[in-house]
Amino acid sequence: MTDQKFQTYELGDFALQSGITLADAKLAYRTFGTLNADKSNAILYPTWYSGFIENNEWLIGEGMGLDPNKYFIVVPALFGNGESSSPNNVGLAQSGPRFPKVTMYDNVRAQHTFITEHFGIEHLRLVVGWSMGAGQTYQWGVSYPDMMDGLLPFCGSTRTSPNNFVFLEAVRAAIMTDAAWEDGWYTSPPNKGLRAVGRVYAGWGLSAAFYWDEVWRDFGFTSLEDFLVRYWEGHFLGRDANCLLVLADTWQTANVGNTPGCDGDLEKALARIKAPLIQMPGHEDRYFAPEEDQWAGQFIKGSEFRPIPGVWGHFAGIGMNPVDTAFIDKAVKDLLGDD
Amino acid sequence: MTDQKFQTYELGDFALQSGITLADAKLAYRTFGTLNADKSNAILYPTWYSGFIENNEWLIGEGMGLDPNKYFIVVPALFGNGESSSPNNVGLAQSGPRFPKVTMYDNVRAQHTFITEHFGIEHLRLVVGWSMGAGQTYQWGVSYPDMMDGLLPFCGSTRTSPNNFVFLEAVRAAIMTDAAWEDGWYTSPPNKGLRAVGRVYAGWGLSAAFYWDEVWRDFGFTSLEDFLVRYWEGHFLGRDANCLLVLADTWQTANVGNTPGCDGDLEKALARIKAPLIQMPGHEDRYFAPEEDQWAGQFIKGSEFRPIPGVWGHFAGIGMNPVDTAFIDKAVKDLLGDD
Repeated sequence: MTDQKFQTYELGDFALQSGITLADAKLAYRTFGTLNADKSNAILYPTWYSGFIENNEWLIGEGMGLDPNKYFIVVPALFGNGESSSPNNVGLAQSGPRFPKVTMYDNVRAQHTFITEHFGIEHLRLVVGWSMGAGQTYQWGVSYPDMMDGLLPFCGSTRTSPNNFVFLEAVRAAIMTDAAWEDGWYTSPPNKGLRAVGRVYAGWGLSAAFYWDEVWRDFGFTSLEDFLVRYWEGHFLGRDANCLLVLADTWQTANVGNTPGCDGDLEKALARIKAPLIQMPGHEDRYFAPEEDQWAGQFIKGSEFRPIPGVWGHFAGIGMNPVDTAFIDKAVKDLLGDD
Repeated sequence: MTDQKFQTYELGDFALQSGITLADAKLAYRTFGTLNADKSNAILYPTWYSGFIENNEWLIGEGMGLDPNKYFIVVPALFGNGESSSPNNVGLAQSGPRFPKVTMYDNVRAQHTFITEHFGIEHLRLVVGWSMGAGQTYQWGVSYPDMMDGLLPFCGSTRTSPNNFVFLEAVRAAIMTDAAWEDGWYTSPPNKGLRAVGRVYAGWGLSAAFYWDEVWRDFGFTSLEDFLVRYWEGHFLGRDANCLLVLADTWQTANVGNTPGCDGDLEKALARIKAPLIQMPGHEDRYFAPEEDQWAGQFIKGSEFRPIPGVWGHFAGIGMNPVDTAFIDKAVKDLLGDD
């Protein structure tokens, strides 16, 4: 990533839910399209685990639901993604393993501060996001229920399930097993650990059918090993280990029930959501199971359950396969009332 | 394990499918019950990945299908399990990372040599096994189709699926990421890597519902972390890293189509099977999917598909939950014609 790919908003010292203050907090973002005069065409589209801002762009485009000719689309980056304030880009005191824990609630509060203070946006047409982006979408609905016309969390959850938590324990263990990680005090990347994260993730991100059908061949990979090395290991070698651990913590502790005022009560938190919401799990998602959405959906007024068919599992939401992209795009348009 | 828990059969120098000869090969085994005079009451029940012989005992007992009062039950251990010839118990030349690759076919051929030469057994009432034990059960049906009255592979496959292969890549990576592994030349155990194997396995072995319902509480674990440390990490800390890698290789390369004479043709191999066979996948098994059994079942004459219901996933077959144990035991009795 170069600085040209995103801009930065200065939040200043930002008090986190944990009681720690993130000093000189910065929110990285990119916008697509133009905010209209009455500021009524804004859409928020936050990032996901290990995702950079640019990794969200596949769902944005002329003729798509997220059309920059009509809407002002803001993509804010998660704390810890390496673009917003992160272990590898903050001042020395809070760098590396001393970077504070950040919650979903913290991320969404920072995004709210940013769009209201920087752009004067008081209303959103839509909040939409994949995976941890879906988690932020739910959090937006709970934290600021009067602020949006629609919510589209795809392949995500309101609260991280124990199953998902256990998967992330494997991701963390992969990094922490590498002696080069040095409890986070590494001066060069723990590449063995990052490669191991790729091998752990490979089995979880996609379905059994994806591998059975060798769908990876459609993307130019010449063998399963080629796919594991160039795609999976390659992706995580491009990320910072401490960033991955900060994001994993945000994910593992995610629970909209922990929004202040909700007393840790998830059902109470979900009852706050007012905007029409489409829950869109991947049919064979291994860590965000459709059943979890169905369970949470009981407590959300006006929610629709619309799973993404097919063999992509969680990665239905990554933008690599046109069929799933069209399916998600249709839901964006439905919520926006566009055709 | 102490020597008292199993006996050892000397195979001598044993030529493997790879072209390497395993010198002074030893097959560890334990028997339950008494072989009758006409040698017509023998049952074979091989071990599984990281399993010791004693870990098979839960399915054996008075009044159960595998009743030692009626049957002579032989439990042979896989090469590489730490009891049969393994990286940590052979002569120096083939020890540690120099232990040869062993196939499912090799294991079954060794077991055949053992029971025919040592006991004079020419016929088996049943071959039954869990997980890699199920793989050996299928291999028995293909290698020696005229030798048994029934086959009960539970939670296993005829050929390791790519999905399963990828899961095992994560297991391997967990070990190999630990610098203490030293490419297999460790002199003390790579415990960080073995613990990481536990965290990787935890998510795969059980279903999302198992964790959602906190079924681990039924076994005295006081938190999810307690379960991860004492059960999962504890199990793999008790195993040798090179053994786990040898067994992973046997598993990853498993394919009854590679039986000599089958020309790598899986369907041709499956058509060899003659004995009645019950395929018994775990309903929510994450690495041996029921769909795989259904696919393979098309090519096996007289196979019945009877999935194990419930939330235990792959671990339906580990003997910890009485309901699943009773379900499996019923199939043992059905195949034996007992009530």
